[in-house]
This record gives sequence, structure tokens and C-alpha cells, in this order.
Amino acid sequence: MTSVQLDEQGSVTTPAGFLAGAIHAGVKYDDPERLDVGLLFSERPCAAAAMFTRSTVPGAPVIVSREHIRAGRARAIVTNSGVANVATGEAGIRNARTMCEAAARKLGIEPDELLVGSTGVIGWTLPIEKICAGIAALQLERDGGSKLARAIMTTDTRPKHVSASFEAGGRRYHVGGVAKGSGMIHPDMATMFGFVTTDAPVAAGFVDSLFRPIVDETFNMMSVDGDTSTSDTVVLLANGAGGGDAIGAASPAATPLREAVFGVSHWLARALAADGEGATKLIEVRISGARSAEEARRAARTITASPLVKTAIYGNDFNWGRILMAIGRSGAAIDLARATVAIGDVLAYRAGEPQSPPAEVALAALRGPEVVISADLGVGDGRAVGWGCDMTEEYIRINAEYTT
Amino acid sequence: MTSVQLDEQGSVTTPAGFLAGAIHAGVKYDDPERLDVGLLFSERPCAAAAMFTRSTVPGAPVIVSREHIRAGRARAIVTNSGVANVATGEAGIRNARTMCEAAARKLGIEPDELLVGSTGVIGWTLPIEKICAGIAALQLERDGGSKLARAIMTTDTRPKHVSASFEAGGRRYHVGGVAKGSGMIHPDMATMFGFVTTDAPVAAGFVDSLFRPIVDETFNMMSVDGDTSTSDTVVLLANGAGGGDAIGAASPAATPLREAVFGVSHWLARALAADGEGATKLIEVRISGARSAEEARRAARTITASPLVKTAIYGNDFNWGRILMAIGRSGAAIDLARATVAIGDVLAYRAGEPQSPPAEVALAALRGPEVVISADLGVGDGRAVGWGCDMTEEYIRINAEYTT
Repeated sequence: MTSVQLDEQGSVTTPAGFLAGAIHAGVKYDDPERLDVGLLFSERPCAAAAMFTRSTVPGAPVIVSREHIRAGRARAIVTNSGVANVATGEAGIRNARTMCEAAARKLGIEPDELLVGSTGVIGWTLPIEKICAGIAALQLERDGGSKLARAIMTTDTRPKHVSASFEAGGRRYHVGGVAKGSGMIHPDMATMFGFVTTDAPVAAGFVDSLFRPIVDETFNMMSVDGDTSTSDTVVLLANGAGGGDAIGAASPAATPLREAVFGVSHWLARALAADGEGATKLIEVRISGARSAEEARRAARTITASPLVKTAIYGNDFNWGRILMAIGRSGAAIDLARATVAIGDVLAYRAGEPQSPPAEVALAALRGPEVVISADLGVGDGRAVGWGCDMTEEYIRINAEYTT
Repeated sequence: MTSVQLDEQGSVTTPAGFLAGAIHAGVKYDDPERLDVGLLFSERPCAAAAMFTRSTVPGAPVIVSREHIRAGRARAIVTNSGVANVATGEAGIRNARTMCEAAARKLGIEPDELLVGSTGVIGWTLPIEKICAGIAALQLERDGGSKLARAIMTTDTRPKHVSASFEAGGRRYHVGGVAKGSGMIHPDMATMFGFVTTDAPVAAGFVDSLFRPIVDETFNMMSVDGDTSTSDTVVLLANGAGGGDAIGAASPAATPLREAVFGVSHWLARALAADGEGATKLIEVRISGARSAEEARRAARTITASPLVKTAIYGNDFNWGRILMAIGRSGAAIDLARATVAIGDVLAYRAGEPQSPPAEVALAALRGPEVVISADLGVGDGRAVGWGCDMTEEYIRINAEYTT
């Protein structure tokens, strides 16, 4: 997929000129180990791009962040977990603005240079005093990115952060990212939270067109449960702290830059899928032979969101018919007389005929922490890759008991 | 919803002139109590309408039934459960035709007067000799409809059959139905199997326009898991055995006929949702105030298919934010400043403000075998009602172990 070297110790503060910090403010839980307010800051102004949920019920932080990114000069992100600040009326909008103002005051910048993200229970009111006290008290650190990755977690079982680097024009640049996911994950435009930074001098006019297609192939190709969050937010901040000439679409450096941003986004998307609520396995779906890339994407996303595929994978059940069912439901064109379906290296269906691999061979394709589903639809050249996870009793348990 | 009197002892053989039978043929299971081949037959020609899955991977029985209904003279349905005969290539098509031929021979009618339905595992080949032997051996009975209801069951825990009657022109007419569902249930055009019969003399030109909008409001408004089957088939057979003049769209009898067909279809759709795989509760979703009926339907269907709503209901968790999340994901327009959300009689959200009912009041709204979710979107007059069920550990268990 990518030849970029990734560093799983890295994060959003690996690129030069970015600081981050986090603190326990007691938003939802009393456990002092549980970080729940975070802050990411660039010492220099950034070229920025952000994509948000397509939900018709966006959260107050999404509404406020959309306003701010319009000014085109975001250079900090303030976050909390525990309460999502969604469907909270005018008071919710005020609280999102208050978080930006508190962070701006601390950082000595303007409130509209802040983006804001809240994740957690929908419909609850933020404990805004606690959050503002937390913002004031937290320490920004040169290597605070992994703390920020912890502070945005909800039901995630582990923090997700990574970095990459590339050379261009005799200089070494860095790209870093953090993300959180776990449930209500079927991004439509962007995922829950995915924050990516770089010290490369990306031209202001290039940052959106660089990032958007990468988001479409990474964060937007991942599903945990088919439910699209009200708070999905993905951001790229490029601060140019690495020096050198601005990188535009036509620059030679655009290629390694794109590879590094893709590598970081791709790693984070897979990590989000693998840590889906209750998941025991990562599922990678590779579609080829579709009538178009768009149909390939739809087929891949429908497979990764199908409860019947997900439960079969959980049960090590070589029930490939459900894969065809999901393709059929997606609306993607398929020629059953030419189509192929495989799980791992084991053919399940080819050219109109079900295959019958020995039971132990079929089982071997399903065991292990990652299951690859491949399907060629036999009607064109469209391709896509998507990620999901299996569905287990633990998903039910987590979500039957979430707010209480 | 409907003022029609329903008889839960009734079935597709309650209307005059319909016979049915079923037998254990050993399609998938050896248990002789388990009926798996069924036959429904009208002694007279019928006006017929049928709707099938919109999946791009329809099963062989759907392909063959679509051909036959085109001739416009279906009067019998042959079924098996255990194996769905989907993705089985040319041999699958031959097997579906063979089932029609075997039944036609038994009944003394033409093969293209038969519709055929197979439900069960996708990708397996039908044991066609066993099935044909079963067709030959089964006994048609005047009251065989409830046996047919058993013969089409897969993971359903109970057979579903019902009847209604109405008077018109001094005559009493009957409408009866059987259905099966349980998993892979998110009908797109029609549901898994729903067979409805009537002895009313419905005009050939009216049967489709009578039935299609009813299917849209009943079978198509029900979801168990968001997965659309490859085999969805809903049929209405009207044989006129009750006598009298043909009923067309403008006949006075069209109104009570519509109510009776709606009543039977509505009862069956609710019964399918209530018996969803692993379900402990029926969920009814009532949307009002949408921009259009179509948007109301989308919102209702997205709520009934949402794993996060379904698990919250299972856990008696008054997590109404997930209802707003699902509406947002559906794409339906909503004005949060005017919208209302309630669970049972308990308001959760009104006019921009979350309500905070006492915990015991909220819990009371969630307990019990049926939970009603109401949402007014505050932007128009569009309305819809849909049905679903909760999602439990049992759903996972059933589907992790289905083929094996």
C-alpha cells in the first residue's frame, strides 16, 4: 500500500513546532488516570484543512469548527472526551465557543484559530467550568502527542498515534497523527477524530486537495458498526516549521509528502478498525473488477458494515455467501458468472461455481487477528480497500451499558 | 393503524379455494419434526402481484419467479428452507425450474404458474432429489397454511400466520398471510418471504397497485439487522373464490379490501420484527414532521437498523442521543430547535433542550416487550412508521455459528 517507514512511537508532536498536552478534568469519570481534556498547538500559523461529519445532526463543536476553518488559519485543536456536546441547543454552541476562548487565552492566539472536538455521550451538557479549569492547568509538552491520543479516547482500548518522515530538497520533514474511534464509526466525510500534523511547508492552496482524497481512501473506508457519528472530525495542520519552499500540487516534494500523509492516515484508519468496540479481528476488504471506483467503495463499505459478515468472521465461519449478499445489497454491479470471492488465500467462489475448500483450510483462513476478504466483481476496473472488524458479544455488552 | 379484526389462528388457507401442505424432506436438518418443503395452491387461477429483493445478487428462485410472474398467472408457490439456492450458477437456475416442474406435475398446472422460494444458506447446492420427493409426497390440506408457515422458517422461533375478513356487496371475503424472517432482514422492495392470499375477486389490473404501496408501508418498513437478503419475496394471490364482481381501484369494496390486506401485512411485518434473531423486544419507530414521507421512511429505517439504538434498547438505556444520531445519519432534514424525541410516553428532547426524566420513569419506558420511539423532525408533514428489534448477545451467537 505504501512504502513509507512508520514510527509507532511518533505522534502529532513529532513534526517540529507542534506542542500538545492533556489533563484529567473529570468530565465524565472520576479516575484521575483518565485524561479527558487535550490541546494541540502549533507555534507557527498553519495551512489547514478539515473535514466533518455529513450527519444532519452535527455537534456544536462541528458547527463552531466549520466556522473557524473557513477563516483558513487554524493552528490549535482543543478537545474533551466523555460528553459530545451534541443536541444541546444554544447553550451547547456557547460552550464550544467558551472552550475555544479558554484555549486561545492560554495560547495567546485568536479564538477563531482554534478547532474544537468533543466526543462522548450525545445530549449531555458539558461541565464547562471543569473543562476550562483543565485547559488552564494543562502543560503543553514537546512530546505531548501521545498524551493527547489518550485524552481523546472513549471506549477505545488503546491510544492510536504514529508518525512518518520524508526527504525533499535536502530537508527531512515529518508527518504525525493521532486518532480515536471505537463505536459509532462509519465515517461519512471524515472519521470520529483524526488529527494529522506536518512540519512541511504545504502551500495554503494545496492542503485541502492534498488531504481530501487521502481521507476518502483511509478514514472514510473504515467502519465499526455502520453508525455515523455526529462529531466526526479530521484535520490536517501544516506549519512549515521544517523550512524550505512552499510545496504545491506540482512540486516534486508533493509525491513523498502525499505518501507520508497517506501512510499516517492509513495506519490510523486500520488501527481504528482493529480497535472497534468489542473487536477481536481486523477485517480488510479488497474489491476489484467493479464498474467504477465508487461502486467498489460502496461494496467494500457495505461488507465492512454488515452484521452478518462481521459475526461470521467472529465465529470463524467460512460463510462467504454473506459476502455476496452484502455486495448485492450495496447496489454494486456484479457478474456472478465471472466474479471471484476469497477469504485470505482460500477461494470461496469462482466463475459461477462455489468452491469447497477442506474445512481445516477454510478455518485457517479465518483464524488470526487479521482476515482479508477479496472480491472481484467481474464487470470493470474499479478498485477499493476498506477496513472493519468482527462483531462480538462484547460489542453488545459495551453498548447496552454505555451511558449508565 | 387499522380497524380490521385479525385472527391469529388464520393463515393463507383461510380464504376459500386455497390449499397448502408441507413436509420434512431433510434439506439441511435430519429432525423429522422440522418441515422444510412447502406448497401453496389455489384451485382457481389468480390475479397475482409479487415484489422481490433489489439485491444485485438475487437468488435463482427470484430469477425464475420474476420470469413466471411476468406471465401474470401465478397460482401456486413452492418453497424450501435450509438452503437458499443463491450463487449456485446455472445448476441453481435448473434446480429452481425443477422445483416448479415437480410441483406443476403434482398440481396439474403449468410450471410457469408456479412461484418458487428458497431460504437458508447462500452458496450451497439444493439437494434437489430430496426436495422433489418431498413435493411429490406432501399432502395438500384445506387448513395447511400454518404448516406452510412452519416449513418456511429458518432461525425464526415461531411460525407467523394471520387472517382478516371484510364484507362488500353482501359477501364476506377473507385475506390470509404467512411470513418468515429472522435474520438478513432489511427488505429493499419486499421482505424475506411474505405470502398473502385472498378469495376476493381482485381485478388483474388492480392487484399490483393495491399491494405495492401496502408492502412499502409494512414489509419494507421493518429491519432486523440492516442486511438485505438475496431472496426477499412477497406475493399476493387473489383467486376470486368468494364470488362477486371484480374489485378495481374505483370499487367501493377496494377500501375494506385494502384495509384487510394492510392489516394482514402489518401484523406479519410486526411479527417478523418481534421475532428478529436474538430479539427480546419489538421496537416501533414513529416519525412525524419530516420534510417528506420519503425522508420520514429513511429516518425510521435508519433508526431501526442502528446497532447503537438497538443495543441501548436492549440494555434499557435511555440513550436518546443515539436516536438523533441515527436521524442525522439518515440524511433526513431536522430542525433541532423544533424537534421532539420521546421513548414511550417519556419526552427525551424538546425544542432544543434535552429533558431529564427521573431515572425510574425513563427505565419504565424501556421495560416491556415493545418499545415505541417517536420523533418529530420539526420541518414538515412527512410521516412514517417502522419496526425493528433490539440487538443482543444471542444475535451474535446465532450468526457466529450459522452454517456450522
